[in-house]
Amino acid sequence: MKSVLAVGAHPDDIELGCAGALAMHKQRGDKVYLLVLTRGEATGSAEVREGECRKSADILGVDGLFFGDLADTKVHDGRETIDAIEKVVGEIKPDVIYAPTCKDTHQDHRNAGHATLSAGRRCKVILMYEGASTQRDFTPQVFVDISDTFDLKMKTTRVFGSQFNNRGVYAVAMKAIEGLAKFRGYQAGVDVAEAFEVGKFLFEI
Amino acid sequence: MKSVLAVGAHPDDIELGCAGALAMHKQRGDKVYLLVLTRGEATGSAEVREGECRKSADILGVDGLFFGDLADTKVHDGRETIDAIEKVVGEIKPDVIYAPTCKDTHQDHRNAGHATLSAGRRCKVILMYEGASTQRDFTPQVFVDISDTFDLKMKTTRVFGSQFNNRGVYAVAMKAIEGLAKFRGYQAGVDVAEAFEVGKFLFEI
Amino acid sequence: MKSVLAVGAHPDDIELGCAGALAMHKQRGDKVYLLVLTRGEATGSAEVREGECRKSADILGVDGLFFGDLADTKVHDGRETIDAIEKVVGEIKPDVIYAPTCKDTHQDHRNAGHATLSAGRRCKVILMYEGASTQRDFTPQVFVDISDTFDLKMKTTRVFGSQFNNRGVYAVAMKAIEGLAKFRGYQAGVDVAEAFEVGKFLFEI
Amino acid sequence: MKSVLAVGAHPDDIELGCAGALAMHKQRGDKVYLLVLTRGEATGSAEVREGECRKSADILGVDGLFFGDLADTKVHDGRETIDAIEKVVGEIKPDVIYAPTCKDTHQDHRNAGHATLSAGRRCKVILMYEGASTQRDFTPQVFVDISDTFDLKMKTTRVFGSQFNNRGVYAVAMKAIEGLAKFRGYQAGVDVAEAFEVGKFLFEI
Amino acid sequence: MKSVLAVGAHPDDIELGCAGALAMHKQRGDKVYLLVLTRGEATGSAEVREGECRKSADILGVDGLFFGDLADTKVHDGRETIDAIEKVVGEIKPDVIYAPTCKDTHQDHRNAGHATLSAGRRCKVILMYEGASTQRDFTPQVFVDISDTFDLKMKTTRVFGSQFNNRGVYAVAMKAIEGLAKFRGYQAGVDVAEAFEVGKFLFEI
Amino acid sequence: MKSVLAVGAHPDDIELGCAGALAMHKQRGDKVYLLVLTRGEATGSAEVREGECRKSADILGVDGLFFGDLADTKVHDGRETIDAIEKVVGEIKPDVIYAPTCKDTHQDHRNAGHATLSAGRRCKVILMYEGASTQRDFTPQVFVDISDTFDLKMKTTRVFGSQFNNRGVYAVAMKAIEGLAKFRGYQAGVDVAEAFEVGKFLFEI
Repeated sequence: MKSVLAVGAHPDDIELGCAGALAMHKQRGDKVYLLVLTRGEATGSAEVREGECRKSADILGVDGLFFGDLADTKVHDGRETIDAIEKVVGEIKPDVIYAPTCKDTHQDHRNAGHATLSAGRRCKVILMYEGASTQRDFTPQVFVDISDTFDLKMKTTRVFGSQFNNRGVYAVAMKAIEGLAKFRGYQAGVDVAEAFEVGKFLFEI
Repeated sequence: MKSVLAVGAHPDDIELGCAGALAMHKQRGDKVYLLVLTRGEATGSAEVREGECRKSADILGVDGLFFGDLADTKVHDGRETIDAIEKVVGEIKPDVIYAPTCKDTHQDHRNAGHATLSAGRRCKVILMYEGASTQRDFTPQVFVDISDTFDLKMKTTRVFGSQFNNRGVYAVAMKAIEGLAKFRGYQAGVDVAEAFEVGKFLFEI
Repeated sequence: MKSVLAVGAHPDDIELGCAGALAMHKQRGDKVYLLVLTRGEATGSAEVREGECRKSADILGVDGLFFGDLADTKVHDGRETIDAIEKVVGEIKPDVIYAPTCKDTHQDHRNAGHATLSAGRRCKVILMYEGASTQRDFTPQVFVDISDTFDLKMKTTRVFGSQFNNRGVYAVAMKAIEGLAKFRGYQAGVDVAEAFEVGKFLFEI
Repeated sequence: MKSVLAVGAHPDDIELGCAGALAMHKQRGDKVYLLVLTRGEATGSAEVREGECRKSADILGVDGLFFGDLADTKVHDGRETIDAIEKVVGEIKPDVIYAPTCKDTHQDHRNAGHATLSAGRRCKVILMYEGASTQRDFTPQVFVDISDTFDLKMKTTRVFGSQFNNRGVYAVAMKAIEGLAKFRGYQAGVDVAEAFEVGKFLFEI
Repeated sequence: MKSVLAVGAHPDDIELGCAGALAMHKQRGDKVYLLVLTRGEATGSAEVREGECRKSADILGVDGLFFGDLADTKVHDGRETIDAIEKVVGEIKPDVIYAPTCKDTHQDHRNAGHATLSAGRRCKVILMYEGASTQRDFTPQVFVDISDTFDLKMKTTRVFGSQFNNRGVYAVAMKAIEGLAKFRGYQAGVDVAEAFEVGKFLFEI
Repeated sequence: MKSVLAVGAHPDDIELGCAGALAMHKQRGDKVYLLVLTRGEATGSAEVREGECRKSADILGVDGLFFGDLADTKVHDGRETIDAIEKVVGEIKPDVIYAPTCKDTHQDHRNAGHATLSAGRRCKVILMYEGASTQRDFTPQVFVDISDTFDLKMKTTRVFGSQFNNRGVYAVAMKAIEGLAKFRGYQAGVDVAEAFEVGKFLFEI
């Protein structure tokens, strides 16, 4: 049984990026924890978004949901963000961490990625997921077959109703998410997949 | 009115990679030519595959279909391949060339890409398309909105019936092609798109 | 007729990087707007530099010149810079944006590039220009033939008289600008060119 | 129990690159097969080198040793090499393949890497190992902790006595191999490791 | 006789990264100066660490040791850091600068690298060294043979006794440093070497 | 006094790429040798082109001019090319080798570069020069100030009169060569420069 941590900058980042893999971890009996660095107050009510986040966490059946209490759109890659992540890392001692790729045009995602690489430097596996604002030079190296958990992933992403009024990024992402899963599956030789860049990867043979 | 050339290593490569963009060129009134370097005899009857190729060319309504008469699975990046492409380039004087990306695990695609960059060195726009064996570090820079021509693209790809018996690559590609178009559309901010790496691009303002 | 926005960190950045392309847009009848994020007060009088900036804008015949009121040498990639750019983007709804490449040793340029990619995420074309402190791994993908507007470009860059006393970067850049235009032209197969990395590029066939 | 294939261009390539990982597979109960594409006749007697190869295979306790019968220093990335690998792949149906990285100044290694990516396109994990002529831009993504098998790895590499008379590459490699293992271990957070670029990696959660 | 500057974010960074090269410069008669941007107070007493730093500087026999007075873990890539470096650059006018690579998961190292590239923009050689948290895509281009100074390098690194109690990074680095030197030597064709990415390099023939 | 070897695929490649640096080596008292792999018979008379080559070698005052006797447009990266280079390397034992960059759309240049990296694997410095068909992702790391030898370089390139009738590449290159030298100078902080990617570089402090 492994301890798994997923880090997101905003509510819904984790779901779009790696909910399928997290559900696989739950299937396998791992402990799964979420750390959401902000409450996403820049594109909605913090309260509403936190609520959606908790609902999604319930659907995934995670073992803990943490908030980092950082300010939306102002996540830096320095001490404060690293501390917020290190605190949770110290508590749950993750074997595997999922975090947003640094190759992202959204500063919060980019900086959350950098900060996780610092905070998780003693963890053996760090996988960086893609999302709505990921850059075109994202080059996935590791794929997870999510054929068994794709429906659950879709269910978690539909929880974020508040974002459908938002002026575009989320609605577009929702529309594309099935295409993305199929394309990543195609690259991996399976039906549907999530794709990750390697932050760190110690392969246990 | 522009002259447009699409180069493929095998029957069906062009369709999977850039049929949507080619159909856009036809809509706009451009002349479109196809050059297929081999008849794909390694995974089917050369005759049958050539026939499928001609049928697809008819659906696209292209202005000319050339065959390069090279040997399937043995396309090199040297003189012989460059000559085959230069001959057609000399004849139709293309303003825009589409060719397979060099970032491909299939040697025929990789070498067709290299040879096109040599043969097309005096052409102003060369765009490199992706396909069934493209590597994960393909980094598209230019996108074409194919919302208006996606159905026609799908129609051309279904012509290659002989490939459905082949042990996998084509069937998988067909299954994924809609997902890929949606994902590339998502990256480009449109419904469905084709994505290209730049070989050369002189932007006419 | 398109709406075009050029973003620069300091007075003279836009001129060195993309004045030739902007003049091509004006020739073609497009609306062209400039957004200069700081007044360059770190290497001269803000007043003098703003004046030079206005003079250059007159020579180019632009349709609007905006200042971002950020502090020279302190441009970050966060909320404040993104807001300054989004404000102008919202007003002029650009079809094409020019911005400094992120591959730059000058923090203001690097961050202006990142912030433009965020602020312009719904725009269809973003091209990143090179300048005096661009890194050696700048890899242009798109070129613009500026044979018709090179003289005008040179004229705009000579307006920045205050920078000739500055201890070097600008004087060196001026000296090299003709060589650069010829080299980029050589790569593009024309006489003189400006070269850009693609931020985003939806190619309208 | 998995089926594992290691591909090398010459006798001793596999040992230097991934003998530690192969020994880990044996410890875990996997079936391990070696495919050596040439007998290394360019730097020694084919007979002697084949003998060393068999001795090393015995030490590792592998389940099968295949020779590809290609000509040393003349390994291409085309049909002939792909066929030699596909034949073995068809026979042992590997779950994991180890092959030389394509980022290598030695043409045999580079081409063996390319050909394995083609031949192994339906395999779920392909890891590319480094060696004596690997280029400086080799960027490992996956590490294997070989603390338990490092001594065995060293033992296999010492078998290649004929290469110590060779004018340098092997002797240097032997000298460096301990340093390399420690450095890769350091990057991975363990004592000694082998490092791999990802050809393909479907991560089984 | 050249003037040489080494920039480090914390006490011990310079020693791990380039003490061998600095000792070569001293052997050759160059003037060598160190600039340590923080006193490393995040992982030990600032006083103790400054003392270790001075002791190491004595062993190397450097011609000057400067402190940048920045806050540990909070080094940014902006004005303040650039100023701290420019001040020393202005004073000693270095011909060669050594600085941490920007490809590092530790924000202080990354930002010290960026700031040095800005501050040293008029210097002819800037070499970026690797360290305990350098990323896997560090691609050294320039190597220095440190066979004659490796023992001295080791001696300087052992001075940092306070760091052995620290929870890991330094102890691991110390353990790996000999392996690293051998591996880099192997890549360079010598016994032991230090490896650098090029910030700038004007080669004096 | 060093031994220096420049490798070119065709007559005129070396002159365009590194004649300025070679002239600097001669000024400094080094021995300079040229190895031209083909006689360029694909774009002119082999006899005429060899003659031009000898004339240019005289102007540079080189210590030896070798021909590789390979077939123009058919230079491969395999045994035959490596042997042709190794033969000269064995004879003159170069300290520094100049060769065409592998990032080139012309197969002869690309393969000459690969083969030199193999043949020169025991040499301490290999610098890869750019030319008329170099790709846009050429990223120079090392620059040579050729202010003192630029006129001589231009003189050598004008010797290749036969190429002015050729349908373009050389004429364009000649026109651009001054712009390129100024741009590379600008990047290096000098008047005119040649720029190189590092094949290998052992820096002698």
